Amino acid sequence: MGCINMKVDIVIKNASVYNAYFKKFFEEDIAILEGKIVYVGKEDIDEFCGGTIIDAEGKYLIPGFIDIHMHIESSMATPQAFSHELIRNGVTTIVSEPHEIANVFGVKGIVEMIKGGEECVADIFYGVPSSVPSTSLEFETTGFEIDIDEIKELMVNDKIICLGEVMNYYDVIHHPKSKINKIVEYMKRNYPHIPIEGHCPKIMGKDLAKFIYRGIDSDHTQQRVPSMEERIKRGMFIEIQEKSMTPEVINYLIEYQLFEQFCLVTDDVMADSFYNNGHLNKLVKKAMEMGMAPEDAIYASTFTPARRMGLTDRGAIAPGKLGDFILLKELENFEIDQVYKEGKLVYHREDEYKYACKYNSFPREFYRSIKRQEINKDDLVIKAPIGKGEVSCRVIKVSDGTTFTEEQIHSVPVGQGKLMWEETPLCMIAVFERYGRNGNIGLGLITGDTIKRGAVATSYAHDHHNILAVGKNVKDIVKAVNTVIEKQGGIYVVCDEVIKGGIDLPVGGILSEESIEVIGRDIARVRHSMVELGYKHYNPIMSLCTNGLPVSQLLKITDKGLVKLSENRLVDLIVEG
Amino acid sequence: MGCINMKVDIVIKNASVYNAYFKKFFEEDIAILEGKIVYVGKEDIDEFCGGTIIDAEGKYLIPGFIDIHMHIESSMATPQAFSHELIRNGVTTIVSEPHEIANVFGVKGIVEMIKGGEECVADIFYGVPSSVPSTSLEFETTGFEIDIDEIKELMVNDKIICLGEVMNYYDVIHHPKSKINKIVEYMKRNYPHIPIEGHCPKIMGKDLAKFIYRGIDSDHTQQRVPSMEERIKRGMFIEIQEKSMTPEVINYLIEYQLFEQFCLVTDDVMADSFYNNGHLNKLVKKAMEMGMAPEDAIYASTFTPARRMGLTDRGAIAPGKLGDFILLKELENFEIDQVYKEGKLVYHREDEYKYACKYNSFPREFYRSIKRQEINKDDLVIKAPIGKGEVSCRVIKVSDGTTFTEEQIHSVPVGQGKLMWEETPLCMIAVFERYGRNGNIGLGLITGDTIKRGAVATSYAHDHHNILAVGKNVKDIVKAVNTVIEKQGGIYVVCDEVIKGGIDLPVGGILSEESIEVIGRDIARVRHSMVELGYKHYNPIMSLCTNGLPVSQLLKITDKGLVKLSENRLVDLIVEG
Repeated sequence: MGCINMKVDIVIKNASVYNAYFKKFFEEDIAILEGKIVYVGKEDIDEFCGGTIIDAEGKYLIPGFIDIHMHIESSMATPQAFSHELIRNGVTTIVSEPHEIANVFGVKGIVEMIKGGEECVADIFYGVPSSVPSTSLEFETTGFEIDIDEIKELMVNDKIICLGEVMNYYDVIHHPKSKINKIVEYMKRNYPHIPIEGHCPKIMGKDLAKFIYRGIDSDHTQQRVPSMEERIKRGMFIEIQEKSMTPEVINYLIEYQLFEQFCLVTDDVMADSFYNNGHLNKLVKKAMEMGMAPEDAIYASTFTPARRMGLTDRGAIAPGKLGDFILLKELENFEIDQVYKEGKLVYHREDEYKYACKYNSFPREFYRSIKRQEINKDDLVIKAPIGKGEVSCRVIKVSDGTTFTEEQIHSVPVGQGKLMWEETPLCMIAVFERYGRNGNIGLGLITGDTIKRGAVATSYAHDHHNILAVGKNVKDIVKAVNTVIEKQGGIYVVCDEVIKGGIDLPVGGILSEESIEVIGRDIARVRHSMVELGYKHYNPIMSLCTNGLPVSQLLKITDKGLVKLSENRLVDLIVEG
Repeated sequence: MGCINMKVDIVIKNASVYNAYFKKFFEEDIAILEGKIVYVGKEDIDEFCGGTIIDAEGKYLIPGFIDIHMHIESSMATPQAFSHELIRNGVTTIVSEPHEIANVFGVKGIVEMIKGGEECVADIFYGVPSSVPSTSLEFETTGFEIDIDEIKELMVNDKIICLGEVMNYYDVIHHPKSKINKIVEYMKRNYPHIPIEGHCPKIMGKDLAKFIYRGIDSDHTQQRVPSMEERIKRGMFIEIQEKSMTPEVINYLIEYQLFEQFCLVTDDVMADSFYNNGHLNKLVKKAMEMGMAPEDAIYASTFTPARRMGLTDRGAIAPGKLGDFILLKELENFEIDQVYKEGKLVYHREDEYKYACKYNSFPREFYRSIKRQEINKDDLVIKAPIGKGEVSCRVIKVSDGTTFTEEQIHSVPVGQGKLMWEETPLCMIAVFERYGRNGNIGLGLITGDTIKRGAVATSYAHDHHNILAVGKNVKDIVKAVNTVIEKQGGIYVVCDEVIKGGIDLPVGGILSEESIEVIGRDIARVRHSMVELGYKHYNPIMSLCTNGLPVSQLLKITDKGLVKLSENRLVDLIVEG
């Protein structure tokens, strides 16, 4: 029939092509027309017309990775810098949940993130945040709130494809008429095809059933086998992040062949880990190392995430799908040789690959977001009943390996009507409202695998992003917090009133405009300084920054004080005066 | 915690509950609140509050069946009569494609079908027909046409959840700017989450790839292993209808564990078969008899069809899903004991179950749709070149077991300038335009497993529903056609100018308002009469009625004459004069 038979732009011949439907590789050719795959098979390619023919020399050809639960802001980078690094790792599509910037700038923050994403090589979709603030303004102060009006405003944007993680499971379960249930109902009624993403650590049984009943049918929080088994049994789609990847969990998924019921996600990735260890590709490789067949691990990072998000145009190598794919020489080491986006080569291992930073890419006010005067030592006094030698205090206990905390009761000496915590092994933890709304300061005590001397302060503090500080003494806390205020955002580590490490986060106090490489280097230095002060956690920065996130169990702190979401209330620091 | 812990309306305890996620049965209880399942599990049901408790006595509890590719009109019944019979068979949700009534009444026909469906116990969703007429007005005359404007008008209705079967694969593949490609592009752009259903018998290789490339990713036509294998490999979802259920096809699906890639559908069910043999439940049982595990056959008739259609609120027994389920005493015989719709008992084997017909439920003009005067024998003359003793003619060959036809060349004697076909074993096939548009008559010859004497005429004739007649002699054809005209719709069988059997189809010439039982009885009589006249097909009525459907291969006839869609043209009856 000659070339009139099939016009194409590019042909990749002689590849081992991943087939998501059979979960197998086949020796095939593929052809692309106008950014989409138009042919996969083994017919005579001489009949194709107009196509550049590329010999894949037997390489593996798999779909670009798709990460459907993550937060760009967790890497403290802009969408542009993020995309650059994604592509090098074969990740061609992400669904980011911008609740961090939404806490700081509301709708405007999300709109700016979407705009930033539009210039990128990777496709960046977003979830509309459902939980800003993470709990309610009763428990924390944020820059902005997202409610149904804001969601309406955002849903006109076709880059928004899901309702972002519903975090306040307490209200979902216990208060049918709560704000979060109204949002979920609004979405189900008006956008029935839009996935509703969940965050429901640990809940089980009837509580879990009620959470799902309301319409939330995924969970990306840390799983162990029993929690995952029950979630899958009750119809939840499980988004497996690295901390859920235990041998037990992975073996269970393999044993029961639950490949339709989960995908791999990164959730939060620190910039240095991103730069050095990779992104979703790292989890795929890890799953394989843990015994998952390559065909299944690829499925969990391409096909099921696309299906979960209704992204029918990707996630497989088949006619009509986008020409987003990766070429690999070997499956074992998973070294990415080339990456194609919509049929165009966007990364080649042998070519130079550099990111050109863009500065001042956000509106001016995004660089003046810390609205708070310097603090002083008097701000850090914790009053205690006069006449008592000591009091029992509720203390947050941090443990390595988790961002969940425990509650402990410690005796703390009292002197001159204040807690003499500096005389104990405990540290202070403090949150300083920074949106110019009320000037709140929440004070508490912390112990466990946190620092043992000096202080660290951060304006990157889940999810409210007030300034959070932990310190062994008042002077260092004051120095660290005031440095963050002066810099208009960042993380600073101080010991003996000397700065030991830091990173500037000038965009809303949460993002840098540097490359992932540079942010990674700075973050590594901050982490190193924290470890030098005694922080023993596998991820000290994440551990620090989530001590202010009340939806994560058990005892947390905000600018309003200590929060115990399992009891849905603020609790006192001093339990017995 | 007591009953404040969980308010429910009904509890079914002690059931063997089908779990779609593990594809297993578990001994569990379920609870319903406001029509939806709120709990599945084995916790203490004393903690439920307000619920009627029903003991299932160990029965199997499975989701209501979901049939996503079918046409109510094929049973020649109204939605109400159809729903009544569905429920008895455990089918609680259907997606009907109303292109039959759309060919007759356009948008108004579809709207009336949707209205009818709203009163029903079963949930009746619709696809918006993409292919009305099935090919183009160049090849057939219809009552109405559906184009983008009509689709826009219909899409506001939330009962419309997919684009109905795209049939004109020739235009899809060969004419990027054709009407059908414009419709598909319009849907993909404006309703990216809406499934686009396909009809692409037999095409393979590059043609199939191009069809899928345009965005159509399912096929429900008759499959054999090679066609199905290639479709699945290229990303198509396969809707297995009964004629595809060969041992080879079923064994292939089982061997390659392709349970995510297909569902069972009924497509077209004659009323008598529906009444006597059941509906989707019959296919589920048949799949099991052919070796498919019950858990997999149930999956293919509940879970995958719901997922394909984006019906996230059903297809499994899990929190948040509708309380649509079936109780069965045994899996083997699949005898339906009880059916629940949204938590309410709607069928119980031991209770009386009768349908109360509703007459004149459609607008008045729906009962006056055959706009054509009586025909006479002169209308049936096929002119032939004078002076020839015989000519070679293109003849449609009908074969038992399929609705595909073949083309044969036969010598036919000529006398007085006309074909003397009555002197041969051939029959005449004729199509009479009946919308008052042009009065066209298409004449052809037919052979094979069709009738051997007498005549049959029908106003139910896929998809244009002009009057189609097949007969061994002119007198009987005239009698049969004129009876259909006089009755304002129906199917009539005539021999020696005596009516041997018939059914009235007063609504648009295609539907009766009787119960499935009554329609079934009448249809059986029509079929019996056809068989008596020599029709040898397993489904003579379907075979007859699809002889005028040009999208089904190979040679077909419309009011415009013989159509060969594989060559995209009308062809002459006399090939050599």
